[in-house]
Amino acid sequence: MKNKESLMKSSSYLIENPKDYCNKWQEYFHNDHPIHVEVGCGKGKFLIEMALTYPEINFIGIEQYDSVIVRALQKVPEKVENLCFIRMNALEIDEVFYQEVDTLYLNFSDPWPKRSQRNRRLTSPIFLHKYDKLFKQDAHIIQKTDNRNLFEYSLVSLSQYGYFFNQVCLDLHHSDITPGVMTEYEERFVQLGQPIYRLEAVKKVTNKVKNL
Amino acid sequence: MKNKESLMKSSSYLIENPKDYCNKWQEYFHNDHPIHVEVGCGKGKFLIEMALTYPEINFIGIEQYDSVIVRALQKVPEKVENLCFIRMNALEIDEVFYQEVDTLYLNFSDPWPKRSQRNRRLTSPIFLHKYDKLFKQDAHIIQKTDNRNLFEYSLVSLSQYGYFFNQVCLDLHHSDITPGVMTEYEERFVQLGQPIYRLEAVKKVTNKVKNL
Repeated sequence: MKNKESLMKSSSYLIENPKDYCNKWQEYFHNDHPIHVEVGCGKGKFLIEMALTYPEINFIGIEQYDSVIVRALQKVPEKVENLCFIRMNALEIDEVFYQEVDTLYLNFSDPWPKRSQRNRRLTSPIFLHKYDKLFKQDAHIIQKTDNRNLFEYSLVSLSQYGYFFNQVCLDLHHSDITPGVMTEYEERFVQLGQPIYRLEAVKKVTNKVKNL
Repeated sequence: MKNKESLMKSSSYLIENPKDYCNKWQEYFHNDHPIHVEVGCGKGKFLIEMALTYPEINFIGIEQYDSVIVRALQKVPEKVENLCFIRMNALEIDEVFYQEVDTLYLNFSDPWPKRSQRNRRLTSPIFLHKYDKLFKQDAHIIQKTDNRNLFEYSLVSLSQYGYFFNQVCLDLHHSDITPGVMTEYEERFVQLGQPIYRLEAVKKVTNKVKNL
């Protein structure tokens, strides 16, 4: 296994200049498959398993920290053609994607529990405004968390921003819903018997000006 | 205490011909105070306490069953001028109120757990369509329940019908929110340590034709 520094420099899964691909991600993947983005992909377990399970979808993971994203790069098998990673702050997301994303995943995001920090939550209006620019058609966000306060906040914030919910589950692993691919955090919380909250939110496109 | 039959016949709190007051409830109360309606008021504890706590609001309780509503009539003190009860099926609600209700309470409603029964849930689109006609201005619904599936259903159904949430709480009695007046069911569930779910949903009036 390569050491961390050389992996960060040489891994073909890590995109060096992601802004160069803005509005061109299908060119990057050499196909017209849907693009799904995970904001805060951590050590990559969820995204790598998703990419292997759904080869007809392109997956892109965003993660802020070198020390975390390198763990994803270490883990990914060779020749997974529908997967890549970007090291950046989520605040830059609207400089990297433009009207080309189909689904956004927010898995176990930092809850930023203090009221004074609420703008940093990934479902705050500041982020929702940025996400508006990413989506190809209707906005589609799937969130999972173990944090009750973050989930309550998301239900309020998303609905006030014009999203409606296709599904809300207050205990994913004790429900009729197939739980699907789990993240590292999720496996740990499920073992501890804690409920996992999950929502699927949609915002319809209204008068979107395409391909400016 | 009067026996049940004579109470049902003679109580001034029970409205015999509620449809006669449609669009005239402020006349009934002889004031222009806001009107709050509880659908499925059961034995009346919540509504009676609310009426005593908020004398500047008029409270109307709807309950389908004689055997239940009589318990509310037995309980209500004399001379509470901002309170009355209607014995009827909730499906008739849009024949009794028209553009005059400010807030609707749905407390511990029947969850109708089977999928085939979902239209009977008080937050199904069938009921939400009826509620549209009741509200004076913006639609405003406050729901409390101990039933996870009903709450999940309500979040989806209300949001898809155009409501957004001002507040969502997944464990009312372990939160920063003041829990307020409790229902009979609620007291029992809280004693058992079960979480109480609560939401406040709003739908903005758009192009409502007033006072047709």
